[in-house]
Amino acid sequence: MNILQQLNDIFTPERVLTDEDSLQNYGKDWTQVYTPDPLAIVFPTSTEEVQALVKMANEEGVALVPSGGRTGLCGGAVAMNKEIVVSFDRMNKILDFNSIDRSVVCQPGVITQQLQNFAEENNLFYPVDFGSSGSSQLGGNISTNAGGIKVVRYGLTRNWVLGLKVVTGAGEVLDLNHGLVKNATGYDFRHLFIGAEGTLGFITEATMRLTNIPKNLTVFVLGVTDIPALMQVFETFQNTIELSAFEFFSEDTLSLMVNDKGYARPFDTEAPYYALIEFEVDHESKEESALQAFEACAEEGWVVDGVMSQSLQQAKDLWRLREDISETISAYTPYKNDLSVNISKVPEYLDKVEQAVNQNYSEFKVLWYGHIGDGNLHLNILKPDSMEVSEFFEQCSKVNPDIFEVTKKMNGSVSAEHGIGIIKKNYLKYSRSKEEVELMASVKKIFDPKGIINPGKIF
Amino acid sequence: MNILQQLNDIFTPERVLTDEDSLQNYGKDWTQVYTPDPLAIVFPTSTEEVQALVKMANEEGVALVPSGGRTGLCGGAVAMNKEIVVSFDRMNKILDFNSIDRSVVCQPGVITQQLQNFAEENNLFYPVDFGSSGSSQLGGNISTNAGGIKVVRYGLTRNWVLGLKVVTGAGEVLDLNHGLVKNATGYDFRHLFIGAEGTLGFITEATMRLTNIPKNLTVFVLGVTDIPALMQVFETFQNTIELSAFEFFSEDTLSLMVNDKGYARPFDTEAPYYALIEFEVDHESKEESALQAFEACAEEGWVVDGVMSQSLQQAKDLWRLREDISETISAYTPYKNDLSVNISKVPEYLDKVEQAVNQNYSEFKVLWYGHIGDGNLHLNILKPDSMEVSEFFEQCSKVNPDIFEVTKKMNGSVSAEHGIGIIKKNYLKYSRSKEEVELMASVKKIFDPKGIINPGKIF
Repeated sequence: MNILQQLNDIFTPERVLTDEDSLQNYGKDWTQVYTPDPLAIVFPTSTEEVQALVKMANEEGVALVPSGGRTGLCGGAVAMNKEIVVSFDRMNKILDFNSIDRSVVCQPGVITQQLQNFAEENNLFYPVDFGSSGSSQLGGNISTNAGGIKVVRYGLTRNWVLGLKVVTGAGEVLDLNHGLVKNATGYDFRHLFIGAEGTLGFITEATMRLTNIPKNLTVFVLGVTDIPALMQVFETFQNTIELSAFEFFSEDTLSLMVNDKGYARPFDTEAPYYALIEFEVDHESKEESALQAFEACAEEGWVVDGVMSQSLQQAKDLWRLREDISETISAYTPYKNDLSVNISKVPEYLDKVEQAVNQNYSEFKVLWYGHIGDGNLHLNILKPDSMEVSEFFEQCSKVNPDIFEVTKKMNGSVSAEHGIGIIKKNYLKYSRSKEEVELMASVKKIFDPKGIINPGKIF
Repeated sequence: MNILQQLNDIFTPERVLTDEDSLQNYGKDWTQVYTPDPLAIVFPTSTEEVQALVKMANEEGVALVPSGGRTGLCGGAVAMNKEIVVSFDRMNKILDFNSIDRSVVCQPGVITQQLQNFAEENNLFYPVDFGSSGSSQLGGNISTNAGGIKVVRYGLTRNWVLGLKVVTGAGEVLDLNHGLVKNATGYDFRHLFIGAEGTLGFITEATMRLTNIPKNLTVFVLGVTDIPALMQVFETFQNTIELSAFEFFSEDTLSLMVNDKGYARPFDTEAPYYALIEFEVDHESKEESALQAFEACAEEGWVVDGVMSQSLQQAKDLWRLREDISETISAYTPYKNDLSVNISKVPEYLDKVEQAVNQNYSEFKVLWYGHIGDGNLHLNILKPDSMEVSEFFEQCSKVNPDIFEVTKKMNGSVSAEHGIGIIKKNYLKYSRSKEEVELMASVKKIFDPKGIINPGKIF
């Protein structure tokens, strides 16, 4: 029996798509640089169907690619070689909720924002948040260990996963950790699947943890004189008050937001860099503490001006200056890199990366923004108007080895929160040793002996 | 060349012990039920020495057993078969500290309390805390993913590990995660080593994360009418205030503390169960919130009396009622079980386990205490005076399958935070599926192909 017939048997025909539009749409993610060419798109509705599919794929030797919200930036969900794309669009239900455990059992196709809203309806909070939370799916978040803008207080997605049901590449169903808080019974495979970019098997259910809603989140935007000063500001605030975000962006980035989006500057004074600091003001003494930290930073000359939100609306407006950057600069065909180092090394690292870019291509404009609070910098190189797109990307990729060499020397990460996928495969060696990569391949072989699950991704 | 000669070459003779006292001492942990019989005890001082030892062990086919503070309760560090015990007593230095990163690079032999004190000296806080923190070592904490009394706010040891340097069973040195907060570059092997009970390799360096010191920790002890009421109290407080601990103990347990230790009762009213609740009072409004929660619980009839600490000393005194239980009941030769279920299932679970014990052995006295806030219950069966120790332990181990059958049915854990070691090997199947255990064995084979690192532990 041919493969399409078998798919129709497993899924019923209306959940097997082979039309060109669907193949193009479901075969790619936000990277856009790869040409999709899957065999079919299927839409399972249960763990059993996923298991049947994996067993069939093992017998037929056909590859499967997991597909969530397809908001990835590294090609982790791209299908270019007649694979079957497994979309979780129809496994998008919240199955269970317990207010004592503060746990929510979700299907992998639940949208991040759907979980955030569900939590809020139950007077609780799901704290992982980032630009694509309106379309990214939970299965994808877990598979890339998504981070975002509140990591400094709440950690990454990993912190919020109490349990996972998975179908391994061998077709076995594993029920990992049963939603327990404490469970010291051997290797915790849950953490192996988190961040594995779907290369070990499919997540078909996830039990997520919720927490209390933060009260009166307040935003402080500060103009900062340089990057070393930014680090001092970070340390000062960190030691004064519990932060829920500590973001930054450069003046170049802000100008672009002001010019292109028409957003108001936070204050008139211009500064080379801006810090956006968020914290909970559950009592007015917190506001006083934040103001004292600000004054201390101003006295030291690290900070030239600042504004603190006095309302929810003002806080939202200030956040837009940071949150809308990625979307706004997409008009400039940016070449993106998602990097991290130890927080304390940020000034030296930023300097060296800028040198590497400027030495080779002084005509390129570099925009910096990101999450200082966790050492994660988004480097964006903007395309000069005069240059063709293909030429620009080729030139940029030539700078990569220089950037990654600096990253390696400083024990940083070539992908802080976007994953490796296809786009960074060749650069994995700058962050992981030869031995580690070999061990990864061996571990994959255990969970996916025939190599049918998302082959060619990561390594 | 024989093995002892080779050990002398690697370590210099004064760091190789073979006298009977040392063999007995370093060959066992707190379980005490196994007869130690190691070949030698060695004391490495560097990663290189550990690597040389592992290479030698691979060539000679001799087994190695990691040894930390030997405070384990499951035999994870016991050597009974002429193994070489690798003690980390001499790798007990704090190597580096960074106040911006809030990271501390530790050797594995650093004592938990040493790290806690170091943090405090730097105006920071290492939040993992438990009874044996004065003698347990960090390498052991990480290898068992130690939990303790503050998990409800701070999570387990896993949360605080930024990086690990390990020597695998194959003798490879891996530098895992480089102390980064965000690093999405393939499988995170750091999390595989955490909780692996030293079966994949040796941890030779750990980068730990610190946090802000909590302000004015305050303790509330409440008398509670029954276990379902205890859960309501938990939910009420959890929704009102950020908890740093939510512990419980039974009246039987409290009586024993009062009679044996001469501790004062928290208040005169007797109750079947007591909740010990800890939270940060960084502003007096928090105290008011806690009192309101207490009043709400009293109105519902869940709580019969309560006392809130008014000083640090009073908070300490109240904590002793809970923290000193384990040591105090050790005089009664208790048979211990460290169990967990989803928090919301605690009432049903506790009932069923008690039934299982009573049905078989109604003369046994059962003491309950533990960490309600994370679903972790310590079940202690006390030896009747009339019964011989060996007879008692044999009888108890016969109750185990009944207890673990209930645990399995309710998707709980047969070892919440103590690990599997030797003592629970036969019960692993009640918490992990056959497929999972087989995958564990395959993963071990990758990291330790000759099976020389802590063989016979976990599975």
